[in-house]
Amino acid sequence: MNTAEKYMNRCLELARLGAGDVAPNPMVGCVIVHEGRIIGEGFHQKCGEAHAEVNAIRSVKDKSLLADSTMYVSLEPCAHFGKTPPCSDLIIEHRIPRVIVGSVDPFAEVAGKGIEKMRRAGIEVEVGILEQDCLWLNRRFFTFHQKKRPYLILKWAQTLDGFLDIDRSQITFGQPTWISNELSRRQVHKQRTEEAAILIGTNTALKDNPSLTVREWHGNQPLRLLIDRKNRLSKKLSLKDRAYPTLVFTEEEVASKTNLEYASIDFESNIIPQILKCLYDRDIQSVVVEGGQHLLQSFIDQGLWDEAHVYYGNTFFVKGVAAPRLPVAPIRSENMHDTLLKFFVNPA
Amino acid sequence: MNTAEKYMNRCLELARLGAGDVAPNPMVGCVIVHEGRIIGEGFHQKCGEAHAEVNAIRSVKDKSLLADSTMYVSLEPCAHFGKTPPCSDLIIEHRIPRVIVGSVDPFAEVAGKGIEKMRRAGIEVEVGILEQDCLWLNRRFFTFHQKKRPYLILKWAQTLDGFLDIDRSQITFGQPTWISNELSRRQVHKQRTEEAAILIGTNTALKDNPSLTVREWHGNQPLRLLIDRKNRLSKKLSLKDRAYPTLVFTEEEVASKTNLEYASIDFESNIIPQILKCLYDRDIQSVVVEGGQHLLQSFIDQGLWDEAHVYYGNTFFVKGVAAPRLPVAPIRSENMHDTLLKFFVNPA
Repeated sequence: MNTAEKYMNRCLELARLGAGDVAPNPMVGCVIVHEGRIIGEGFHQKCGEAHAEVNAIRSVKDKSLLADSTMYVSLEPCAHFGKTPPCSDLIIEHRIPRVIVGSVDPFAEVAGKGIEKMRRAGIEVEVGILEQDCLWLNRRFFTFHQKKRPYLILKWAQTLDGFLDIDRSQITFGQPTWISNELSRRQVHKQRTEEAAILIGTNTALKDNPSLTVREWHGNQPLRLLIDRKNRLSKKLSLKDRAYPTLVFTEEEVASKTNLEYASIDFESNIIPQILKCLYDRDIQSVVVEGGQHLLQSFIDQGLWDEAHVYYGNTFFVKGVAAPRLPVAPIRSENMHDTLLKFFVNPA
Repeated sequence: MNTAEKYMNRCLELARLGAGDVAPNPMVGCVIVHEGRIIGEGFHQKCGEAHAEVNAIRSVKDKSLLADSTMYVSLEPCAHFGKTPPCSDLIIEHRIPRVIVGSVDPFAEVAGKGIEKMRRAGIEVEVGILEQDCLWLNRRFFTFHQKKRPYLILKWAQTLDGFLDIDRSQITFGQPTWISNELSRRQVHKQRTEEAAILIGTNTALKDNPSLTVREWHGNQPLRLLIDRKNRLSKKLSLKDRAYPTLVFTEEEVASKTNLEYASIDFESNIIPQILKCLYDRDIQSVVVEGGQHLLQSFIDQGLWDEAHVYYGNTFFVKGVAAPRLPVAPIRSENMHDTLLKFFVNPA
């Protein structure tokens, strides 16, 4: 790792501190270096509040050093007036002579304009330091803007003999069957705090009756999403408890004045693109799809997934509902006592 | 564990020292106790040599104590002249007044006769201490005599996504694809030393070209068994190297004057019972079936299996040959670094 990469890495560390709080904005970290010493640091902390560059400049005690400093920032500084004034203007104003950018911003309002603006003002701008890491950090944000749909994370737990669930065709309203352990459940709750929404299908709601809330971690509650074609699921289901905002996809329009909302889609055609369109329009940048088997496999078969988090529990069901099949091998693994968490990434 | 169980447990410990060396005899351990002190111990060490009771009596320094001692023995003492004189006679001769037997011997030549003989001589005989453990220890021996077929152990390794092998339909002569790790391969070799034979099918021989020898453990080389209907497999295969005795099941009779023997069976009908009959006639008490998928699943589907040892490797094939399916959950698990070994037992 060369010097520029070390500073960019620090930007990434700072940026991550905003995880779960900055969406739909991207996570951004910024470091200001004067003669080999970091004199300022900042990150975007919350949507609507100051950008990373602003916080970094603010943190510099002796502002006169800025005219002889280099700014490292993980994402291209903005050039437009959003909730805050453009960062590129601020950088120009403080006469920072050199800016090192991790990755270009694909967001239509920025997309290279910030870099252009700074270059026109005589600033030396270098782009693409640790670019892959910078892109990965904001994969939700980039996917949302480039593919015009939320970033999709599939999540399930399966037994060592490849089952997602026992055969519960006779059960109409039940409790979940646990495969993974406490540690992995905590990981699932942590993941929830970093995503904008969680989606489950009708059968999962009926059979597991999950609340899809964040209980074993501290953070934001994602929007709960439920598919219920005929709006036939009981009001007694945890998902319909109005404890948190919930959006139900139904065939017919259903009026609502509460946080239990309805969106009507056409169940005679492919529902997944319609759901994604609806979520895109609502600025939902990421969704965890938590089941069941049919819904998960549909996303996989349509190539509509970005990541999959699969928990392999040290248990056996012998018979039951077969786990979904992914077309690739995992890229990374985590040991969680007797459960293995595997991370898959869609190479497409 | 009461006192009698403790002594019987010691018998079992001793008996196990004969593993791999006593077949087709059972493993037997014996302890002689005088006034709460063990004064003699012995086990059956090698087929054809002294029985456990003989070794235990021999080990007692002051033979005069025997007339006031209790003998614990994991299996009923024999009553017939085999390769050695009957143990029940020896016990009577030494006037041992009390004998505690783990389990009755189902072998037709013994089957309760030893116990009967001792009781008629006035010896107090108790039967059934740690009986389940004693039966389990000699499960190969008992199954062989009761079911008139070898004890069957299925063995395979599968990936975390449920595959036995990659798709190698295009490969005609190859190398195995490793799923499990070094530690588990050593365990496989250890297991081989404890069984009388290893069986594989034609495809496995062709594609993996295994030698089925004991390399990573010290012990006996089991008889190598190969199914090769048309006797079409190359003489260059490791299994046909004549390094160790090998028996090939073919359709047509094939003459042989070497240790590469042939047995002809009828491939138009179910081959498994024919193979088992042939092995029973040859006094083969146990067989490890090591693949491939079709052969393993055939044994499972016909209920012809006693144990299965399945290695779950921390690997993914994504596509390939699906692993066999067992109708039960495992009873026991062993961690071998990143591989899990699961033991299944046929409840039938």
